[in-house]
Amino acid sequence: MTQRRITFLNGPNANLYGLDSKGTYGSESFPQIEARCRQHAESLGVSLDFRQSNHEGELIDWIQAARLDADGLLINGAGLTYTSIAILDALLSFEKPIIEVHMSNIYKREPFRHHSFISKAATGIVAGLGPLGYELAITAMVELLARADKAKADKA
Amino acid sequence: MTQRRITFLNGPNANLYGLDSKGTYGSESFPQIEARCRQHAESLGVSLDFRQSNHEGELIDWIQAARLDADGLLINGAGLTYTSIAILDALLSFEKPIIEVHMSNIYKREPFRHHSFISKAATGIVAGLGPLGYELAITAMVELLARADKAKADKA
Amino acid sequence: MTQRRITFLNGPNANLYGLDSKGTYGSESFPQIEARCRQHAESLGVSLDFRQSNHEGELIDWIQAARLDADGLLINGAGLTYTSIAILDALLSFEKPIIEVHMSNIYKREPFRHHSFISKAATGIVAGLGPLGYELAITAMVELLARADKAKADKA
Amino acid sequence: MTQRRITFLNGPNANLYGLDSKGTYGSESFPQIEARCRQHAESLGVSLDFRQSNHEGELIDWIQAARLDADGLLINGAGLTYTSIAILDALLSFEKPIIEVHMSNIYKREPFRHHSFISKAATGIVAGLGPLGYELAITAMVELLARADKAKADKA
Amino acid sequence: MTQRRITFLNGPNANLYGLDSKGTYGSESFPQIEARCRQHAESLGVSLDFRQSNHEGELIDWIQAARLDADGLLINGAGLTYTSIAILDALLSFEKPIIEVHMSNIYKREPFRHHSFISKAATGIVAGLGPLGYELAITAMVELLARADKAKADKA
Amino acid sequence: MTQRRITFLNGPNANLYGLDSKGTYGSESFPQIEARCRQHAESLGVSLDFRQSNHEGELIDWIQAARLDADGLLINGAGLTYTSIAILDALLSFEKPIIEVHMSNIYKREPFRHHSFISKAATGIVAGLGPLGYELAITAMVELLARADKAKADKA
Amino acid sequence: MTQRRITFLNGPNANLYGLDSKGTYGSESFPQIEARCRQHAESLGVSLDFRQSNHEGELIDWIQAARLDADGLLINGAGLTYTSIAILDALLSFEKPIIEVHMSNIYKREPFRHHSFISKAATGIVAGLGPLGYELAITAMVELLARADKAKADKA
Amino acid sequence: MTQRRITFLNGPNANLYGLDSKGTYGSESFPQIEARCRQHAESLGVSLDFRQSNHEGELIDWIQAARLDADGLLINGAGLTYTSIAILDALLSFEKPIIEVHMSNIYKREPFRHHSFISKAATGIVAGLGPLGYELAITAMVELLARADKAKADKA
Amino acid sequence: MTQRRITFLNGPNANLYGLDSKGTYGSESFPQIEARCRQHAESLGVSLDFRQSNHEGELIDWIQAARLDADGLLINGAGLTYTSIAILDALLSFEKPIIEVHMSNIYKREPFRHHSFISKAATGIVAGLGPLGYELAITAMVELLARADKAKADKA
Amino acid sequence: MTQRRITFLNGPNANLYGLDSKGTYGSESFPQIEARCRQHAESLGVSLDFRQSNHEGELIDWIQAARLDADGLLINGAGLTYTSIAILDALLSFEKPIIEVHMSNIYKREPFRHHSFISKAATGIVAGLGPLGYELAITAMVELLARADKAKADKA
Amino acid sequence: MTQRRITFLNGPNANLYGLDSKGTYGSESFPQIEARCRQHAESLGVSLDFRQSNHEGELIDWIQAARLDADGLLINGAGLTYTSIAILDALLSFEKPIIEVHMSNIYKREPFRHHSFISKAATGIVAGLGPLGYELAITAMVELLARADKAKADKA
Amino acid sequence: MTQRRITFLNGPNANLYGLDSKGTYGSESFPQIEARCRQHAESLGVSLDFRQSNHEGELIDWIQAARLDADGLLINGAGLTYTSIAILDALLSFEKPIIEVHMSNIYKREPFRHHSFISKAATGIVAGLGPLGYELAITAMVELLARADKAKADKA
Repeated sequence: MTQRRITFLNGPNANLYGLDSKGTYGSESFPQIEARCRQHAESLGVSLDFRQSNHEGELIDWIQAARLDADGLLINGAGLTYTSIAILDALLSFEKPIIEVHMSNIYKREPFRHHSFISKAATGIVAGLGPLGYELAITAMVELLARADKAKADKA
Repeated sequence: MTQRRITFLNGPNANLYGLDSKGTYGSESFPQIEARCRQHAESLGVSLDFRQSNHEGELIDWIQAARLDADGLLINGAGLTYTSIAILDALLSFEKPIIEVHMSNIYKREPFRHHSFISKAATGIVAGLGPLGYELAITAMVELLARADKAKADKA
Repeated sequence: MTQRRITFLNGPNANLYGLDSKGTYGSESFPQIEARCRQHAESLGVSLDFRQSNHEGELIDWIQAARLDADGLLINGAGLTYTSIAILDALLSFEKPIIEVHMSNIYKREPFRHHSFISKAATGIVAGLGPLGYELAITAMVELLARADKAKADKA
Repeated sequence: MTQRRITFLNGPNANLYGLDSKGTYGSESFPQIEARCRQHAESLGVSLDFRQSNHEGELIDWIQAARLDADGLLINGAGLTYTSIAILDALLSFEKPIIEVHMSNIYKREPFRHHSFISKAATGIVAGLGPLGYELAITAMVELLARADKAKADKA
Repeated sequence: MTQRRITFLNGPNANLYGLDSKGTYGSESFPQIEARCRQHAESLGVSLDFRQSNHEGELIDWIQAARLDADGLLINGAGLTYTSIAILDALLSFEKPIIEVHMSNIYKREPFRHHSFISKAATGIVAGLGPLGYELAITAMVELLARADKAKADKA
Repeated sequence: MTQRRITFLNGPNANLYGLDSKGTYGSESFPQIEARCRQHAESLGVSLDFRQSNHEGELIDWIQAARLDADGLLINGAGLTYTSIAILDALLSFEKPIIEVHMSNIYKREPFRHHSFISKAATGIVAGLGPLGYELAITAMVELLARADKAKADKA
Repeated sequence: MTQRRITFLNGPNANLYGLDSKGTYGSESFPQIEARCRQHAESLGVSLDFRQSNHEGELIDWIQAARLDADGLLINGAGLTYTSIAILDALLSFEKPIIEVHMSNIYKREPFRHHSFISKAATGIVAGLGPLGYELAITAMVELLARADKAKADKA
Repeated sequence: MTQRRITFLNGPNANLYGLDSKGTYGSESFPQIEARCRQHAESLGVSLDFRQSNHEGELIDWIQAARLDADGLLINGAGLTYTSIAILDALLSFEKPIIEVHMSNIYKREPFRHHSFISKAATGIVAGLGPLGYELAITAMVELLARADKAKADKA
Repeated sequence: MTQRRITFLNGPNANLYGLDSKGTYGSESFPQIEARCRQHAESLGVSLDFRQSNHEGELIDWIQAARLDADGLLINGAGLTYTSIAILDALLSFEKPIIEVHMSNIYKREPFRHHSFISKAATGIVAGLGPLGYELAITAMVELLARADKAKADKA
Repeated sequence: MTQRRITFLNGPNANLYGLDSKGTYGSESFPQIEARCRQHAESLGVSLDFRQSNHEGELIDWIQAARLDADGLLINGAGLTYTSIAILDALLSFEKPIIEVHMSNIYKREPFRHHSFISKAATGIVAGLGPLGYELAITAMVELLARADKAKADKA
Repeated sequence: MTQRRITFLNGPNANLYGLDSKGTYGSESFPQIEARCRQHAESLGVSLDFRQSNHEGELIDWIQAARLDADGLLINGAGLTYTSIAILDALLSFEKPIIEVHMSNIYKREPFRHHSFISKAATGIVAGLGPLGYELAITAMVELLARADKAKADKA
Repeated sequence: MTQRRITFLNGPNANLYGLDSKGTYGSESFPQIEARCRQHAESLGVSLDFRQSNHEGELIDWIQAARLDADGLLINGAGLTYTSIAILDALLSFEKPIIEVHMSNIYKREPFRHHSFISKAATGIVAGLGPLGYELAITAMVELLARADKAKADKA
């Protein structure tokens, strides 16, 4: 069986994680989080395409590319989570598992962060667990894909 | 009289029309829709600039360009229809006819699609008629321009 | 094949179009619009039943009659568009194509005109294009019926 | 004692019950429901005036007539249930028992059906029980009238 | 100068005024109120067309007729006041003075009576003054017409 | 019988009527309106206490004084109409007739003027009729008092 | 065929019916209502499990038990009707007929009683008919079960 | 170092998981999920106290007990998630890590499930991942505790 | 005269007062508050039944018991204050004085604590005064009962 | 130690307490309430500055004066409670204890009285206990000041 | 040319700036801010009328006076900003430039401060810049007046 | 001391200022405004980085760059002001002074422009003063930086 490919997209300002003096998003820098995710994916035997953009359009381009290239999608929409129906539409066209990830517990923050358009397309959600949540979401995706494979194999 | 120039802009994910397994947007692919529109415009003797982008900023750039280059504007804002005041502002600066087009009847879908910022700047709206609506909107624009010409000629 | 029959219903005060000194609904009178529609239908080879009433109940009676007599329904609900669930219910029982038509772009007018119960039952919508929109809607209906026929023929 | 007279009014589109291919209102036709109600009323020894109209004004005329002619009123306001304050006002002037009836459970349907103006004037409500609910409502009305008679007799 | 013609329209259930045991609308019957208005109009030298209907469509027909036949319009929309955009549209096409009248002070009653679509087209409002308010509204209309005449005469 | 005493209170900025270049409140100055009211009251044989203040507290003091000194109260709350529960409370303690008056039709203006706390305490409302409405309101109050006297006399 | 088993659950404070000096819930005591229901069920040949609890958790336990023990469920959620999603979830897992019952017409009472979570799971609703409604609901349930049996028998 | 103790609480109707014919919560039974969790906890070397109750009060009692007995709390509030401020208050008094778990993605379900009071007290959230999410949440809790220990040790 | 009996009920988590490290509810423990109340009641010569429960149903059972056993009721609904209509219904059936008590000023806390169902049944409210408020509420209840006794005695 | 000084402010129309024929605020007159408060303050050994004004600005002036002159502030904002952010701002600048007092239970009255701006600045609230509440609030303030003194003394 | 006259009004509690221990409005006292403004106005060659009042009515009196006496108006409405339609009405009658000033950034504070009635009449807004903003607003007003003069001169 | 660096960002369509025939944004062109700002910055001795983009992502990139390169940030978010939480997040990570600028008074325009996400991160706001406001905002920023320097120097 070919290696599983996972795409992990990060929205605007995620590249600043760990630089914020208020520490909303923990103390680990974004490159450190990326490294940790790459290592974790490798340990689970999956290929990881990890990206960040401040541009909504670029994130949509990448989701569309993932339709062809990826078996599962992880996305931290950051500030676009709450407002981008265009990203939701792209995700709705991605007909494989999607896991929504947030560093912080968005439901404990300002009211305008209590609504996620991404949730409407996501299979599951992992939030508030910081960089650990990033790793858990990768684990979850790998498990979801493995179980789907097993189900398919059982059927055949 | 010089040939009429029409710009037809398509927003995020319109390029996926026909690829969606749920068939929300019909079965025709986006290149097929584009071809059909080009043929229809040609048959009506107008020049058609047909474009699609996943980037809000690019769509705004194109609307600004159309201020100089086009006699009329057709726009399917897709997912940005419901959220982009920046696109609305660009359209408000376009002081010629605008027709808003939607493949699906957005007022029969989720509540967050029941409000269009584009409608606040549009002359007219054609929705829910699929690719046929694209052709009708082009016909409508050509008629609007012809009647305006005639009115001007009658005055003179 | 027998001739296609289309019913076109107009709601309260549509009979005053063109008489309003503010020109919200253009300068063409309602009889002129009716004549234009009849001529257009004739040119497309379809039979047109064109009516207007100020009475909600009469419009419902006509929609119910159209269930037996018409292949497609066009409706400009006028002031009842925004409030009549009874008309919506009648339309929901009409299981053939419906096109909602409005002379003006209702989404640019007072907020209480930004919600249409008719849209919940309509296949498509044409708004803001004045009497031209009436003709386009007839064209659209004829096309929708022709394509459905073709699809049925292809299947057989 | 003279025979009890009951008026049972049905609002817009109730005459289509059973004809709807989606079966929202069951499979029994409206004439069948009417026949069933007439038979049931007869078996309970009461006179039944059973009517349907698509016209709000006609329903109001009938409610006003019932002020003089009927001992109790049953009403399925259909689509007017949710919007007609004019019917509510007529019912508020009917100072005898009123039972509101609905074929379907309106509180399980679209949100705009979750509010009834008729409930503000009704003694009781029977909903979601289909044609059976029509019979039960008649039974209930007969019982209410009998108990009121008994109370009056006991007092005397 | 020809005699001034005033149309006074009354909406659903106004014909029951005075019959209601709770006395919301006073103790005078509708025919008494009509008689009082006719006498008052006569004393002021104006012709009065006084009507009542339970049918929204009929009220709209009458407003449209008044466009040709009347110099001023008085209207007590009753229960349709709060819901009928179709009546509002008819009134908006009546380009002469309109006075909205209510027997009761609607702003002291249930919240759903605290919004009037008729107010959006009315010149003035008289409410809560019972049959006396009917007479005052006629006086007001006569004064408005007289002042407009005087202004026109002064100009000429 | 002693002469009837009526208090007519005017809220903030009413003293500027007629000075506004946009003419929202007509062209008559406030002293002219006052003179007209005094003359009208005199012609009806009632004593009129006519006052204006920009101070909410002063208006409340005057309403409290009217509890002892006046048989009826007329009040144009102006900008305080929409916000002052303190004035409402004062009016609720005034247990005789109250008529709310507005120069303009407040329900045709900005949405924040569509709610009146004064209406919750008023017997009746006269709005949108300009200075004529001031006179009509005085007439109405005199009539209300006369009828109450007559009712009391009839009873005795 | 085995005897039909019906469970009838009553929520908080139902045990106080008839004790309330304001008489909101009539004058019959809860044990009297229970006796009347038992007698009625017996007369219809069904077994009735009639219970009341002030504890949401206990009501949920009973609904879960009814999944195994009962053919139909009647429930008067009382004060929990408006707030308990946990009871709704239990009812949603009960895949047989459910009838919601209320002594009073909850839609005529305080606004916070105008929304029922139980309605989202109920087949039908009987409200405002007092103890009579309890009996009617039992009749309705017996009829629903009989018709389902007949339908099944007809099919076989 | 002593073994870590984790409490995992499940709210109303969680005991029915896997029994629902619509499969909202997957096909695994609650005892199977419990077994899986126990095995997983054991494999991670932590002690697990796994409980379910339909009673809000019992869940609160258990949260209060966990203040003394547990190092971390996992909670699937089920139907009480959306309504119980009393559970929130209990959680707010638990001053150690809390992870909120949901079998389904509650943000894709009915709107009344889009708000969680538990989120206001939770460190992190895992939703929509079915029984897999239960295991991940346990992993996450063990990691959170380990990192806190390490941080404390580093400091010392 | 027999000794006055007062019931003082405390809702969920009140038993944790003083244990919370953030000090929202002061530093006195619940047993200390209870002792202080018992001593205060004794000094005023009234019998005090002081209870706490995390179970809504148990609180309702106790309110129902108080209908027979107590002359007045004090209640701190804690987290159930904001959500429990079932408790409100129980209180509405308690036809003697009720005082609502809160340790903290709930109107200064999160918005979901700014609405109390208990207030709709309470005679008076004491909030934000900590344990002192508990004592004052007892004093107030004793005074209310004494004045009622005196009023009754004066009448006799 | 110097004598404690307490300011007790009363808002608009409080001077009419006891004069209202509906008895919303009891039967004691305002001077009687004032006398009772003075006597009570004297008995507790504190100086009381008791005032009433119908003028928002005067109340603000007095709150500002109390910053220098008083140790604690009691305020019954009356009708300004619900609307005056200016009074709230003045109270926010008063950095000593504040107790909000209401004669009636404002949360049982009209919805526009269910929100208090004063609560946002108050330490505690006493409502619905009539003149007795005035005395209790004074007692509470004296206790708060005494405990603060004791706490300060204990520290020193 | 005569010297420009500017009126600068300050609303309730502005006189306490700098005295607040939380420092919401900076550390400069109100007399210091006034002195700084006077000096700045003098340096720009304009006459400055700088005032503060806690009384809404007095502020309205001053705005009315400014209609005759001032060329431009600066206003910090303080707590009345959010609630006073009466002040808005006064400002709407002032037909020369108005600049709204706030010491703090009101849009970062409590939600009830996020709406300004004064903005509806203001030419421009300066907020959040403390005493510096006061000076800038004066500069802006002087510039606005100079440009208007220049425009007028250019025209002549 | 090194020269102060200020970044001034302009959002979508700002490049069209002065080209709009309705003149919403004045008559000066964007390059003229830019030139005026450059000249003003130069006169104040600060370096100015002045940019415009129609792309949200590009604006975010620039704000992130300014974290390293600029001492203060000025931003006119244009149409993104009202919708972009992603820009807000970028601004929240910029821990130096921010001034929000608007050409027009957005609070006098359509309701959807009455809410600014940028205000939540801004130190101060200057709106409605046209190009003059651009200059004033630069002045304000220079002053803020100078005062901060002075404060730091005073401390040292």
